[in-house]
Amino acid sequence: MSKQPASLKEYLKERKKIVDDALDRFLPGEDRFPPLIFESMRYSVFAGGKRLRPVLCMAAAETVGGDIERVVPVACAIELIHTYSLIHDDLPLMDDDDFRRGMPTNHKVFGEGIAVLAGDALLTEAFHLMSDGEILDKVAPEALLKTISEVSTAAGFYGMIGGQVVDLESEGKDADMETLNYIHRHKTEALLTVSIRAGAILTGASETDLAALSAYGRGIGLAFQITDDILDIEGDKELLGKDTGSDKAHNKVTFPALLGLDGSRKRARESIDEALSNIAHFDDKADPLRMIAKFIIERKS
Amino acid sequence: MSKQPASLKEYLKERKKIVDDALDRFLPGEDRFPPLIFESMRYSVFAGGKRLRPVLCMAAAETVGGDIERVVPVACAIELIHTYSLIHDDLPLMDDDDFRRGMPTNHKVFGEGIAVLAGDALLTEAFHLMSDGEILDKVAPEALLKTISEVSTAAGFYGMIGGQVVDLESEGKDADMETLNYIHRHKTEALLTVSIRAGAILTGASETDLAALSAYGRGIGLAFQITDDILDIEGDKELLGKDTGSDKAHNKVTFPALLGLDGSRKRARESIDEALSNIAHFDDKADPLRMIAKFIIERKS
Repeated sequence: MSKQPASLKEYLKERKKIVDDALDRFLPGEDRFPPLIFESMRYSVFAGGKRLRPVLCMAAAETVGGDIERVVPVACAIELIHTYSLIHDDLPLMDDDDFRRGMPTNHKVFGEGIAVLAGDALLTEAFHLMSDGEILDKVAPEALLKTISEVSTAAGFYGMIGGQVVDLESEGKDADMETLNYIHRHKTEALLTVSIRAGAILTGASETDLAALSAYGRGIGLAFQITDDILDIEGDKELLGKDTGSDKAHNKVTFPALLGLDGSRKRARESIDEALSNIAHFDDKADPLRMIAKFIIERKS
Repeated sequence: MSKQPASLKEYLKERKKIVDDALDRFLPGEDRFPPLIFESMRYSVFAGGKRLRPVLCMAAAETVGGDIERVVPVACAIELIHTYSLIHDDLPLMDDDDFRRGMPTNHKVFGEGIAVLAGDALLTEAFHLMSDGEILDKVAPEALLKTISEVSTAAGFYGMIGGQVVDLESEGKDADMETLNYIHRHKTEALLTVSIRAGAILTGASETDLAALSAYGRGIGLAFQITDDILDIEGDKELLGKDTGSDKAHNKVTFPALLGLDGSRKRARESIDEALSNIAHFDDKADPLRMIAKFIIERKS
């Protein structure tokens, strides 16, 4: 499974297909009762995401010489957590967004009550995927518990949810770099980094390799958030599948607001260089992680 | 720890204290950042619940000869899941309730955005409590994974969330006994039953004992829901800490609506008798479960 891909585009497409197929297998269909919850969950899960977190999880497993098949259920679980967070963040009581990835947001289609429940169900099912089913044949129980613990921390009050709380609280206020860093590190970086760590933990990486991969995760996490902020200003609405200018409309604190556009681009490049230097000692099995790092700042959506 | 309690009241008080102390130890305080999320979570967790699910979890452990200390973190995790479900259910976009246990509901105090996030954080932390910390010294990894799997199923789309979806969908419609049974079995019984199963799984119960305890759980689960429906009609508002008549106001399908008050009381008693018969073969270590069964239909709040 670890043959070198011809190009980044081909690599991402192949990996996205592995994830999409697995998600389709793991998520019950609308033939199950009550159909509405499965329709709502599937609407958002299959809305065309890049599957960046699962792809990173698999690439980290490959980097340390592991088999990507072993990490697919956990990679999918993390994608479910990412999707739940988008559904809840888009609610009128949170960011109040009507479109995502070119489609109406979950609550615009299914109503706010079902959208909350679909998010709750995706979060809950993520932990089911990490504790039962095919993963049990592939990974030692201790490594699974460590993964569940790390993922729940990254998604919880000291991670993604903590970041969203501070994001909500800082709307419309003059926020400083310290606040911006807190929001980004918790809201975005925590789940990206744990995707990489999980791939490595599940395939038996050493503590040294784990530390190097975590540093890589922090580097691409910062670059990812800065690029998101830049795209919200000068991105192509068609490619993004949503309106630009949303950060400004919500009075959100962003990197371009504090560093300017040029300063932000410079910071993103430095952060990617830092990420790459942390995985420089790995052999060519880390090439996918190297390609993804460059993709993070070059992407148009 | 398994000395016989003098009375039900004393027993419930003693057990509630064990749970409250553990929850206070497990949940970060408002001195942690960001304080608002911990304030909001703690507001609802310490709003005076009976801790029925954790008490059942510990009583099931005792019944099969296990040490209750081993199950406390999981018992608390299930209480966090119960609390998250109440916070989300009370939201205006769901049941729109202003009071619970005599206090304003979470979103009335903290706003809807923080209430959604506090619920998300409690659900996420539940899985952290079951996969890390002191539980790792007390329970084998395989039993923990089985517990996480069962709890996530009971709380998820085939359990509690499925029940809430059908409950939402059936509001204002003429629902039949089949729908009512679906709602109650999934929304209430699933989490009650898994509380009992978890206590037994974590302390190494046999499959036969597990089956008997599950049947007990189904029996008290039905009686619990019927009693809830009856209390919503003729309960004491002061003792309940919330307005009665809420089911009627929301056009909810209830047991009294389909069976009448007398018919409902009869069904609840039969269900408790059924529960008791399923644990008749256990020795006096099952006496707490027997007391709790009677408490379920005699309670006033």
